[in-house]
Amino acid sequence: MKKLIKGGTIVTAADIYKGDILIEDERITAIGAQLQSSDAEVIDAEGLYVFPGGIDPHTHLDMPFGGTTTKDDFETGTIAAAFGGTTTVIDFCLTSKGAPLSDAVQTWHAKSKDRAVIDYSFHLMISETNDEVLAELPEIIEKEGITSLKVFMAYKNVFQADDGTLYRTLLSAKKHGALVMVHAENGDVIDYLITEALAEGNTDPIYHARTRPPELEGEATGRAAKLAALADSQLYVVHVTCEQAVRQIAEARSKGFRVYGETCPQYLVLDESYLEKPDFEGAKYVWSPPLRKPENQDVLWNALKSGELQTVGSDQCSFDFKGQKELGRGDFSKIPNGGPTIEDRFTILYSEGVRKGRLSLNQFVDVIATQSAKLFGLFPRKGTIAVGSDADLVLFDPNAERTISVANHHLAVDYSAFEGMKVTGEPVSVLSRGQFVIRDKQFVGKAGSGQYLRRNRFAAS
Amino acid sequence: MKKLIKGGTIVTAADIYKGDILIEDERITAIGAQLQSSDAEVIDAEGLYVFPGGIDPHTHLDMPFGGTTTKDDFETGTIAAAFGGTTTVIDFCLTSKGAPLSDAVQTWHAKSKDRAVIDYSFHLMISETNDEVLAELPEIIEKEGITSLKVFMAYKNVFQADDGTLYRTLLSAKKHGALVMVHAENGDVIDYLITEALAEGNTDPIYHARTRPPELEGEATGRAAKLAALADSQLYVVHVTCEQAVRQIAEARSKGFRVYGETCPQYLVLDESYLEKPDFEGAKYVWSPPLRKPENQDVLWNALKSGELQTVGSDQCSFDFKGQKELGRGDFSKIPNGGPTIEDRFTILYSEGVRKGRLSLNQFVDVIATQSAKLFGLFPRKGTIAVGSDADLVLFDPNAERTISVANHHLAVDYSAFEGMKVTGEPVSVLSRGQFVIRDKQFVGKAGSGQYLRRNRFAAS
Amino acid sequence: MKKLIKGGTIVTAADIYKGDILIEDERITAIGAQLQSSDAEVIDAEGLYVFPGGIDPHTHLDMPFGGTTTKDDFETGTIAAAFGGTTTVIDFCLTSKGAPLSDAVQTWHAKSKDRAVIDYSFHLMISETNDEVLAELPEIIEKEGITSLKVFMAYKNVFQADDGTLYRTLLSAKKHGALVMVHAENGDVIDYLITEALAEGNTDPIYHARTRPPELEGEATGRAAKLAALADSQLYVVHVTCEQAVRQIAEARSKGFRVYGETCPQYLVLDESYLEKPDFEGAKYVWSPPLRKPENQDVLWNALKSGELQTVGSDQCSFDFKGQKELGRGDFSKIPNGGPTIEDRFTILYSEGVRKGRLSLNQFVDVIATQSAKLFGLFPRKGTIAVGSDADLVLFDPNAERTISVANHHLAVDYSAFEGMKVTGEPVSVLSRGQFVIRDKQFVGKAGSGQYLRRNRFAAS
Amino acid sequence: MKKLIKGGTIVTAADIYKGDILIEDERITAIGAQLQSSDAEVIDAEGLYVFPGGIDPHTHLDMPFGGTTTKDDFETGTIAAAFGGTTTVIDFCLTSKGAPLSDAVQTWHAKSKDRAVIDYSFHLMISETNDEVLAELPEIIEKEGITSLKVFMAYKNVFQADDGTLYRTLLSAKKHGALVMVHAENGDVIDYLITEALAEGNTDPIYHARTRPPELEGEATGRAAKLAALADSQLYVVHVTCEQAVRQIAEARSKGFRVYGETCPQYLVLDESYLEKPDFEGAKYVWSPPLRKPENQDVLWNALKSGELQTVGSDQCSFDFKGQKELGRGDFSKIPNGGPTIEDRFTILYSEGVRKGRLSLNQFVDVIATQSAKLFGLFPRKGTIAVGSDADLVLFDPNAERTISVANHHLAVDYSAFEGMKVTGEPVSVLSRGQFVIRDKQFVGKAGSGQYLRRNRFAAS
Ligand SMILES: [Zn+2]
Ligand SMILES: [Zn+2]
Ligand SMILES: [Zn+2]
Ligand SMILES: [Zn+2]
Ligand SMILES: [Zn+2]
Ligand SMILES: [Zn+2]
Ligand SMILES: [Zn+2]
Ligand SMILES: [Zn+2]
Repeated sequence: MKKLIKGGTIVTAADIYKGDILIEDERITAIGAQLQSSDAEVIDAEGLYVFPGGIDPHTHLDMPFGGTTTKDDFETGTIAAAFGGTTTVIDFCLTSKGAPLSDAVQTWHAKSKDRAVIDYSFHLMISETNDEVLAELPEIIEKEGITSLKVFMAYKNVFQADDGTLYRTLLSAKKHGALVMVHAENGDVIDYLITEALAEGNTDPIYHARTRPPELEGEATGRAAKLAALADSQLYVVHVTCEQAVRQIAEARSKGFRVYGETCPQYLVLDESYLEKPDFEGAKYVWSPPLRKPENQDVLWNALKSGELQTVGSDQCSFDFKGQKELGRGDFSKIPNGGPTIEDRFTILYSEGVRKGRLSLNQFVDVIATQSAKLFGLFPRKGTIAVGSDADLVLFDPNAERTISVANHHLAVDYSAFEGMKVTGEPVSVLSRGQFVIRDKQFVGKAGSGQYLRRNRFAAS
Repeated sequence: MKKLIKGGTIVTAADIYKGDILIEDERITAIGAQLQSSDAEVIDAEGLYVFPGGIDPHTHLDMPFGGTTTKDDFETGTIAAAFGGTTTVIDFCLTSKGAPLSDAVQTWHAKSKDRAVIDYSFHLMISETNDEVLAELPEIIEKEGITSLKVFMAYKNVFQADDGTLYRTLLSAKKHGALVMVHAENGDVIDYLITEALAEGNTDPIYHARTRPPELEGEATGRAAKLAALADSQLYVVHVTCEQAVRQIAEARSKGFRVYGETCPQYLVLDESYLEKPDFEGAKYVWSPPLRKPENQDVLWNALKSGELQTVGSDQCSFDFKGQKELGRGDFSKIPNGGPTIEDRFTILYSEGVRKGRLSLNQFVDVIATQSAKLFGLFPRKGTIAVGSDADLVLFDPNAERTISVANHHLAVDYSAFEGMKVTGEPVSVLSRGQFVIRDKQFVGKAGSGQYLRRNRFAAS
Repeated sequence: MKKLIKGGTIVTAADIYKGDILIEDERITAIGAQLQSSDAEVIDAEGLYVFPGGIDPHTHLDMPFGGTTTKDDFETGTIAAAFGGTTTVIDFCLTSKGAPLSDAVQTWHAKSKDRAVIDYSFHLMISETNDEVLAELPEIIEKEGITSLKVFMAYKNVFQADDGTLYRTLLSAKKHGALVMVHAENGDVIDYLITEALAEGNTDPIYHARTRPPELEGEATGRAAKLAALADSQLYVVHVTCEQAVRQIAEARSKGFRVYGETCPQYLVLDESYLEKPDFEGAKYVWSPPLRKPENQDVLWNALKSGELQTVGSDQCSFDFKGQKELGRGDFSKIPNGGPTIEDRFTILYSEGVRKGRLSLNQFVDVIATQSAKLFGLFPRKGTIAVGSDADLVLFDPNAERTISVANHHLAVDYSAFEGMKVTGEPVSVLSRGQFVIRDKQFVGKAGSGQYLRRNRFAAS
Repeated sequence: MKKLIKGGTIVTAADIYKGDILIEDERITAIGAQLQSSDAEVIDAEGLYVFPGGIDPHTHLDMPFGGTTTKDDFETGTIAAAFGGTTTVIDFCLTSKGAPLSDAVQTWHAKSKDRAVIDYSFHLMISETNDEVLAELPEIIEKEGITSLKVFMAYKNVFQADDGTLYRTLLSAKKHGALVMVHAENGDVIDYLITEALAEGNTDPIYHARTRPPELEGEATGRAAKLAALADSQLYVVHVTCEQAVRQIAEARSKGFRVYGETCPQYLVLDESYLEKPDFEGAKYVWSPPLRKPENQDVLWNALKSGELQTVGSDQCSFDFKGQKELGRGDFSKIPNGGPTIEDRFTILYSEGVRKGRLSLNQFVDVIATQSAKLFGLFPRKGTIAVGSDADLVLFDPNAERTISVANHHLAVDYSAFEGMKVTGEPVSVLSRGQFVIRDKQFVGKAGSGQYLRRNRFAAS
């Protein structure tokens, strides 16, 4: 079974050129100026960009949070991802104190198997570093190919780990070739600020932002970076939102430390004022860390351009406005955190990044796919268009114009985080390991076709 | 005429994979897992890396300086470059105040035509910005494809331009799509320090370094970066040697300014102590800016890794020790500045960078070739391995061990800057536009086969 | 002849306490809780602060500029200064290239002798550092007690010196115990920006600000600081206006270098928008460096508070709006630079600084008097209230409210730079060496009573 | 009862002048050039400096720690302090979780009453911020005049408070006019490092330093400063030892935040290598934070000079080498932390600071006395020489040379932290509220003559 994609403009993190791509079975076997293949299905890509499929390093599908569960699961979530040009997601496997890590992994396998329409993998949350956890960890890394560990510095009394746990995780990660990810906010102080806000009757969604000021993200980011440097380990800061945090990451990198940062589309194009929308609509825009003042957006774009930040994740975590976000009416701290972003990540980065001159085409591919593949041990199988790589491809019309809306998105959730936003550029067809998942803007895949990805150990790139 | 390079490990700024490369005429027409071609010459690359040919963005071949002329010209210089894995050089075309720019360009064409064995292009020095120069500039840029302009902040009363000239050049470059390059040292203060040193009888080579302290490079680098930011133009700082200068470039980039930096192999592996070699041998190590204290080397490597610096140029500028460097006996200020580095740039970066874990293979290709191609308007024709690109290729044995020495180098000059240095990795064969220049470590090219390259205008990447 | 000032609250750079001050002849001979003196005139200071007389380290009285001369001279200028609480001024003695330094000093003695009503001294401008100048300098320093040297980095083709001159002046100052002062703006680039603005028909006062952007002040400040550090000499940056410049000074100080900075009241309370006043009134607000965006004001106040800046000078340099500022109608570059600030410096710092909580009373005295005395070799004779010090005292009513206006000021110039500004606090009486110059808000001094002050050599404090 | 100190050179944080000081009862009532008093005892101070008595803002007298108690109590400790030129100490009152704050205060009153020979006050440790503590705090501040609160970020499971407690303490301090002091080290990570070191058999004193790296002090200092800024409160970082911490304080101050820092004599003159002394002698040099690499010393001196740090405390906390420090043989974590420094603080700062040109005489007084008085609500009663201030005075021979040694010190502890160090300058006589405590180098005071000082609320200075 062969396919020949003809006439597209192929873009990788380094290259741009016109060429044909030959796919045999699941992989790319040749790229040429005028490839011929008598037995291949020919797909016309004239006038289109051919990008490597996006890699979303940060999703929460079918995730329980505060007594409810995200609306989108591995089926609806990955279908939407595919529509949006993403062909790999790495989801967070949440663990519980006292239970074996392997239980959590099995739970996540159960959630995703037979559901995902694109390939997927897991990060593993670490909430404690006792002897049992430290003993089990190498085996999980080896057997499951889970080479990234997540530590929370916030969500006091829920997910939050102390600095000793973070430090030990960094040491263990170094030893076993894993990358430590942190949610960097000072949870102790946030906990107090929330209590105070509620005590003073400040219960509206905007207080979510006011009780999580950027200073506390900057502080925690700097703390994590310094601990990583001291441990001579590797650190990846998820969902960076503000100048204070960017500066801490840049300073560490400038000294040669292996510190990396991710931002998300919502922080690049939305701002704090959305939390003040009337009729509780602000609740739709409750992420942690929260949306920030608009001047941070330029800082984040510059950081992607100059290489101070490496990746863009969606932090997809969708809850219906009706019935789920509404749990926080009268108490912003009960609003489930997160929003639907998995489908729009790719196009927003293209439209707001490339089209507006903030990123080159190569930089776009780098932040949307290649860097995540490299940092999370999927390269060169994923994240690029090269001979031998999986044929995870996006045929992208750079001039298509459309308006993002709940009316046309493919998630199950009942609203869009970017409702009404006009974007330029749209995936036309998307292939996962050589099979169309999206063809001519129609879903043609099937649940369960996505494979679980065992990943390589961390290697500094 | 076709060639098929089989079985190598292809490395670009983004990718690493095994594949075969098909070359038709001068260009790459296909890359595949198992390419077949009945009429192609097959070259076995098994066990070798296939890198894009190096691009050396900074050479001085056949250049007059202080009453003498560099020993190596476009023939010996480019032969050595080719042996070292470099397939494109961009040389500096020196202008004289009062004379038309086109005169200088013609002079450089005369020097290079029928001599170069690899492709080449020119940067154009700007020493004044009067109405004549500003009027002639757009035409030169258009007709000659010279899209980079060099301004000297040092060499008082010789090359040095004042800040007004630099600023106007930045504005003109912005308007016409050129990149401004600066030699960043404070020439006024250096001029005084040299005068004083000589007056005090301090005439040995080490005083070359002592009269050009890193503070003065940091100062001038910061000044140029601030003027570029104010002009909203693009700036490339050549031969960055020290922490002070790196910090200034990083700060500008972090704010989103189009400021770029280059370092050179000599600053990465040699240090100031070489200038103290006895018997005037220190004169061999006289570059401007001078070699620095060794702690700067880590700073430079980190800057390449983190993207604070983008390229590595050789600043090749060779003078015989006998008869040329010796002009400065008894007066260090008369030592011709520069050294032979064109041949070893590529391998030193591989050996000291990749093999010692300071750079990934992708980063190596980026700094040795791709970034220069992008910044100087040669991409994607040069600087990568992709369908449609020139077949400028290096077949590289990553495990070959050898010792750099004047006894085995291919330059005309009578010493090696890296004499005795053991390196791992060596180009086996080198192709320029599909033709072997070096084959199995033998020169098989011919003078004049190199073409002059008209370059595209600057586009931020 | 004795005076006894009773019941005031005495404030110095360190202390605040109630006490009586006994003055004998020109000096303070005792301070006590309840001093008695049968033969002293008793002055009641109950309810008043007793401050050391202000020291204004930066004035231009009777100064020629662009074909005209400041309206205020050593008589009107020092009378206004005294009304404002200032008892010492240090004026800039301008030199001409090619003429002996002593000529300029004699000219300034002629301007000031028999005119000044308070004590005064001179800084000496250095515009070239040839053998004659360097030979004459030690003698001037010794004989005239002129221990501060001014170098201009701007005013191309008028006052501007190159970096070599600045560097040699720094070295000479170090050797002979003088402090180098710089006007820090990049004159080369400003010169071009002015030419361009005028060529484009942009002739209004606001273009004065637009052609002298803060980046160029920051650049020059950093350059001067780095040269001072390299020379291991001492540097004082006059009239600092913006964050960019403050950061450079702070960075140098943090590394232990002897770098100091001065700001002026106009930069603390006015902003760039004043230059846009209609009917050419913007010309009244033409200073170099220009007024800045308002966000710089907080930076300057913080810098005074934290010790990043040490002093506040007036940069008094007054030209009538009618007939003088008007020389620049149709060409902003012909507007004489400067404004009337000598009288209001002291009160504005009290009113906007102390009353608004930005400075403590001690810090107020430090920046308005003590630091200037220490940096310029007048301490402890001037700048404090201590036994043995000159009885230069200000009896200050902290609660008096008034409105600054040309209608009530004491300068000859025809407008006030702070017209309409409401301030709290006012000098009631002012003594210079024990004699009233101002008594109960009336001038009671006489021209010529001020003495020329030979100053001590620089000593780091 | 009057005293007249004649002919000394009086030095304050601002002034230096010759003068006589008249003391009536406990206070200074006059300062003059030639004071006469028929009924006063005349003390000759010719050739001596007269300094305000030193204020030591950081002592631990009679303090329990790890099952033992400091060798020196309020009697021996204050006698030694007085010999060393210190006339006020502020000791830390340690609280226990669950017990009323007032219990701790009463305990400390009991320790000090009838023992101290100079005046003293208390800081209050805050280890939790529950409703009881927050309710009791205003009363303690009001009644006891305790206007400084200490929070520990280290000593896990002993003194350490979490960030929420620190933040609430900052808010409470702002509300009630107190200054929050922090011991800034990351206790969680240190706890792990200690456990690991011991597990690996690394039990020697040097591991005390290796398990408390400067990165962890820098981290915690930055964290505390950011929380103080967010709370818009005031913060004082005790015992700053390293560049990392200084940078964090300087950055906060530069932005206008009320963040202050203290260093100690041991960090200015000793270094990490002392911990490697043989025969367990390294234990004598166990402080937390630990002694650092010597390059930090210049950073600390510069920070005192430039005003980035404000004070020098002793952190006096003495344990005998025999029997007490020895508790840590075989386990460095059991070595009681601290050393004897109260007596030498003053002279070391003079000898190493003033005599070596690192501090001016005014700066010396500022850091040794005045700034502590201002920050801790004792000014102008203490910390200066002014009319109305307590006659706490040091008559200091600037040229006396001596060698610090356990053989001649006045503490009870069995070793000297600065054994063998040659210093220049020595207190000859010391007065506390007008009474000699030390006269001609002999102790003439008596236990219990020191008074407890109720302090004013914090006011930014
Ligand atoms: Zn998160
Ligand atoms: Zn998340
Ligand atoms: Zn150069
Ligand atoms: Zn060069
Ligand atoms: Zn000026
Ligand atoms: Zn001026
Ligand atoms: Zn402590
Ligand atoms: Zn302590």
